[in-house]
Amino acid sequence: MARERLLMGPGPSNAAPEVLAALGRPLLGHLDPEFLGLLDEVAERLRMVFKTANRMTFAVSGTGSAGMEAALVNVLEPGDEIVVGVNGVFGGRMCDVASRAGAKVVKVEAEWGRIIEASDVARALDDHPEAKAFALVHAETSTGVAQPIDEIAELLRGRNTLFVLDTVTSLAGMNVDIDAWGVDVCYSGTQKCISVPPGLAPITFSERALDVVRSRKTPVQSWYLDVGLLAGYWGSDRVYHHTAPISMVFALHAGLGVVLDEGLDARYERHVRTAATLAAGLEERGFSYVAASRLPMLHCVRLPDGVADATARSRLLTEHGIEVGSGLGPFKGTCWRIGLMGHNAREGNVERLLGAIDTLL
Amino acid sequence: MARERLLMGPGPSNAAPEVLAALGRPLLGHLDPEFLGLLDEVAERLRMVFKTANRMTFAVSGTGSAGMEAALVNVLEPGDEIVVGVNGVFGGRMCDVASRAGAKVVKVEAEWGRIIEASDVARALDDHPEAKAFALVHAETSTGVAQPIDEIAELLRGRNTLFVLDTVTSLAGMNVDIDAWGVDVCYSGTQKCISVPPGLAPITFSERALDVVRSRKTPVQSWYLDVGLLAGYWGSDRVYHHTAPISMVFALHAGLGVVLDEGLDARYERHVRTAATLAAGLEERGFSYVAASRLPMLHCVRLPDGVADATARSRLLTEHGIEVGSGLGPFKGTCWRIGLMGHNAREGNVERLLGAIDTLL
Repeated sequence: MARERLLMGPGPSNAAPEVLAALGRPLLGHLDPEFLGLLDEVAERLRMVFKTANRMTFAVSGTGSAGMEAALVNVLEPGDEIVVGVNGVFGGRMCDVASRAGAKVVKVEAEWGRIIEASDVARALDDHPEAKAFALVHAETSTGVAQPIDEIAELLRGRNTLFVLDTVTSLAGMNVDIDAWGVDVCYSGTQKCISVPPGLAPITFSERALDVVRSRKTPVQSWYLDVGLLAGYWGSDRVYHHTAPISMVFALHAGLGVVLDEGLDARYERHVRTAATLAAGLEERGFSYVAASRLPMLHCVRLPDGVADATARSRLLTEHGIEVGSGLGPFKGTCWRIGLMGHNAREGNVERLLGAIDTLL
Repeated sequence: MARERLLMGPGPSNAAPEVLAALGRPLLGHLDPEFLGLLDEVAERLRMVFKTANRMTFAVSGTGSAGMEAALVNVLEPGDEIVVGVNGVFGGRMCDVASRAGAKVVKVEAEWGRIIEASDVARALDDHPEAKAFALVHAETSTGVAQPIDEIAELLRGRNTLFVLDTVTSLAGMNVDIDAWGVDVCYSGTQKCISVPPGLAPITFSERALDVVRSRKTPVQSWYLDVGLLAGYWGSDRVYHHTAPISMVFALHAGLGVVLDEGLDARYERHVRTAATLAAGLEERGFSYVAASRLPMLHCVRLPDGVADATARSRLLTEHGIEVGSGLGPFKGTCWRIGLMGHNAREGNVERLLGAIDTLL
């Protein structure tokens, strides 16, 4: 077995020791009263992390991409229009998922590395007043772009269009404020700033979104992701739907405990602080950022001259036990994606990475 | 925290210690060469357990029900016909999933507790020669019925209709022989006889099934479960699709190792042997079986007079730390479902359960 990895790529991040211990706990049944109590606590902790009072806040039994699919297929019916912000891989993925659900997709595009402009969103919403939903990525993991939300949230107020937000990479690492922003459906992943292994997708639906689901004319195309059926298990009825991923729920419960013990503001601040140290170190070494509006937890940086992408990443991994991510799309071969997520956003890790990079330069 | 549970319900079963240890391993990245090597080993181990040479054998990143959905939505297109055997909850669930994929569902029904008769299947296949698929549950977890496969497999030979088989509860606990039976798509779960926590769904697609997927006129409705996209990651290309559930893959790798170290035949035989001990003990105490064609790993039994279902199950759990399952559908309130699955199929557990039952009678 290889040495332990320091996971400084686009996710997964390393799990906290409490989380690994929880994973190894002996199992409980999915209808055991003790397990059901734990589910309630997971939902309550997720409400705190999402900053929402939404009753229907839970974890989809799949990774972040299953969360994306759950968000979209529950609200969309064949023929519906959806407006999607696209400035990287994950906006593009939302278009793919939505069109497979039979929706007509209207893209609001921006160059990779740039934010989606509120003015472009306003125009699209005005041109498509019947759009069932508007979907946006908060933290584009493919580019490191931090999408400003306030102005776009304001645009959506008073419209019938539902606001769907992807916070896979941002949740628990920077401010996510579902109720204040008026977000109707928000999904995330466990393996980024929550620092729980991949396998669950935290998700929340507003009552308005649930009303839209309830008034569908067609069944939700996915039985597995049908929020109406899932409400039977996560709600007070405790109707068996599918067998919950017990060990991953243990892990999420523990991971959210670590997050809330630290406190959200302290955790956000730790991400900002370590990001600043990393940015200074990278720029000093000739790396340059792709994005102007930058995420603290994901740094997409152009390589300095003389650093060969694949070889250098491979040396970081094999000689130093550090994983960083490759660039995607237009940044493939010329950029790295360096993560400072959750448990891993610590000065010591920044120093270790910069030191390892120095041996390559 | 409650005392450790002995999980003798319809699943999950208890995980072997090796599996719990694997769950707690520090993470690797989903594109780390060491992790990719592990994925290859998981696929190879699954081929051995399924008894198949199918290249496209892997684990869906969701529970057994996600495996069911993956099996059906990949092969079905809107307007396709599918013939489904229905004699319990899981056959019924397949109909629901298939109809959400736009398929016309033809049911071959049998009373709960009885097998699907080959003659009924023959009639339905003759009446629906264009049916895209025929789907059957090998081990009905809701009734404890063991479905004979040989005769039905024979019926399907030479037809264009794909054979889809649910082995969620049977795999690694009784003979499952995918290639010999000519099964085209088979899915399972991890939390029954493999004794790995719930969260992954082993699945295998024949080349013939993949040809059907490749010749679709419409995209697979689920992006997350699209086998064409998943092949890019599980195959040699290693294209990022979604982030694999790392820790659960560690656990499955370990759990399959335990299964294969024991040997499939020895494992099947252990299930049969402990099932016989359990059956004798239950019948001695006035329990009677619902099914004539019985599973070794799941015993659906009518309660003797004087045993109050919910109270007795609750006492088993709280006083003895033993979980058994309630009856479903027509058996609700009058039957229990007792599991002897994988790691748990041991004489000592049978004795412990029978002893605990004696304190209730």
